[in-house]
Amino acid sequence: MTAPPSASRPRALVLLSGGLDSAVCALLARRRGRGVSALTFAYGQRHAVEVERARALGGALAVEEHLVLDLPAGLFPGSALTDPAVAVPRRRPPDRSIPATYVPARNLVFLSMAAAVAEGRGMDEIWIGVNAVDYSGYPDCRAGFIEAFRAVLERGTKAGAEGRVVRVEAPLLDQDKRQIVLLGRDLGLDFALTWSCYDPAPDGRPCGFCDSCRLRRKGFAEAGVECPD
Amino acid sequence: MTAPPSASRPRALVLLSGGLDSAVCALLARRRGRGVSALTFAYGQRHAVEVERARALGGALAVEEHLVLDLPAGLFPGSALTDPAVAVPRRRPPDRSIPATYVPARNLVFLSMAAAVAEGRGMDEIWIGVNAVDYSGYPDCRAGFIEAFRAVLERGTKAGAEGRVVRVEAPLLDQDKRQIVLLGRDLGLDFALTWSCYDPAPDGRPCGFCDSCRLRRKGFAEAGVECPD
Repeated sequence: MTAPPSASRPRALVLLSGGLDSAVCALLARRRGRGVSALTFAYGQRHAVEVERARALGGALAVEEHLVLDLPAGLFPGSALTDPAVAVPRRRPPDRSIPATYVPARNLVFLSMAAAVAEGRGMDEIWIGVNAVDYSGYPDCRAGFIEAFRAVLERGTKAGAEGRVVRVEAPLLDQDKRQIVLLGRDLGLDFALTWSCYDPAPDGRPCGFCDSCRLRRKGFAEAGVECPD
Repeated sequence: MTAPPSASRPRALVLLSGGLDSAVCALLARRRGRGVSALTFAYGQRHAVEVERARALGGALAVEEHLVLDLPAGLFPGSALTDPAVAVPRRRPPDRSIPATYVPARNLVFLSMAAAVAEGRGMDEIWIGVNAVDYSGYPDCRAGFIEAFRAVLERGTKAGAEGRVVRVEAPLLDQDKRQIVLLGRDLGLDFALTWSCYDPAPDGRPCGFCDSCRLRRKGFAEAGVECPD
């Protein structure tokens, strides 16, 4: 598919974490004819290596603009992803409760800042790679949250009031990890540029035990695609 | 009224800009028995003096905790409040459109970060001094936006999923500025600590012409209370 001329091409701001899902999401936005910019957050995450992967991915994708924003220290206290004193769980909570890696209101903060950036720069869409199938049970990865966030933009922004609301696209919401891996392969993603592990080992390799490692490896195995790590 | 014992006292995080409305909001939260903490944002605003007023107000109110967060440069481009090249209007847009001082998704970003702070610290409520009567027409100051934001917290946070959602209180939503001034007087607010002007003069005094100056002066005049500036 040839992209339409740039004058009429929708401009998409893709939340690019450095993980598998957001990388696939960015490639999908391009495949669908969007002019793609990227937004990445450094928020004191334990796996700060993902920010470096996001930078590399942004370069490999030749995005139009790549904003990497540093969030204020202490914004997200108490999560296993931000507090060295809280261990990253090596298995799912037996009662299926939301795990200690939950970061309060994280995707809400990310989407809100994306909305500010997109509206301020006249972009048309925000793309987010949330997934509610092979995921850790975080409520801010579910369809209900995305729908509610769309309503916020309708009612609380000038663009919304003027009938040109910034649209929120979550194309991987209902995909399982196997499908996401296959989609990434079809889109030509270099999987080695992506990073999923929450709790990198001292030698810099993925731990292999955290929920994010487990989901990643399951996805590659079920897709029959070699996992790069 | 005596506040209930602190063990059962709800903990409120008040968005404190340094302006009149948020200062009244903080005092009202205390009057209503809340343990009050404050959250202030430095976002490159033209009237950065308001951040200093917020700090002084937080001190005068002896809030439990006062977080002043610096937002990343360039998050809010293009507004008259953040871009020196865009003039602050000296009168309302004749067509009643949203004025150039609108900052895209500002209250959404502020409330989202407040939600992260409040949930991460186990606070019960967020208080915001938005007002949709004597205001500049910003969509993120209206009831519809606040309602939509509450739905986002219900659906997109762990606290919401567990039936203990962080509540959002907007007690000044339907007050006019005269009522807010009278309420501030009743609550013992030192109005001289507050700052409203968008476009301080070179001598550091309020311009007297911007929408925020006009609304402030109108409120004091109608309340029959002396304006401190």
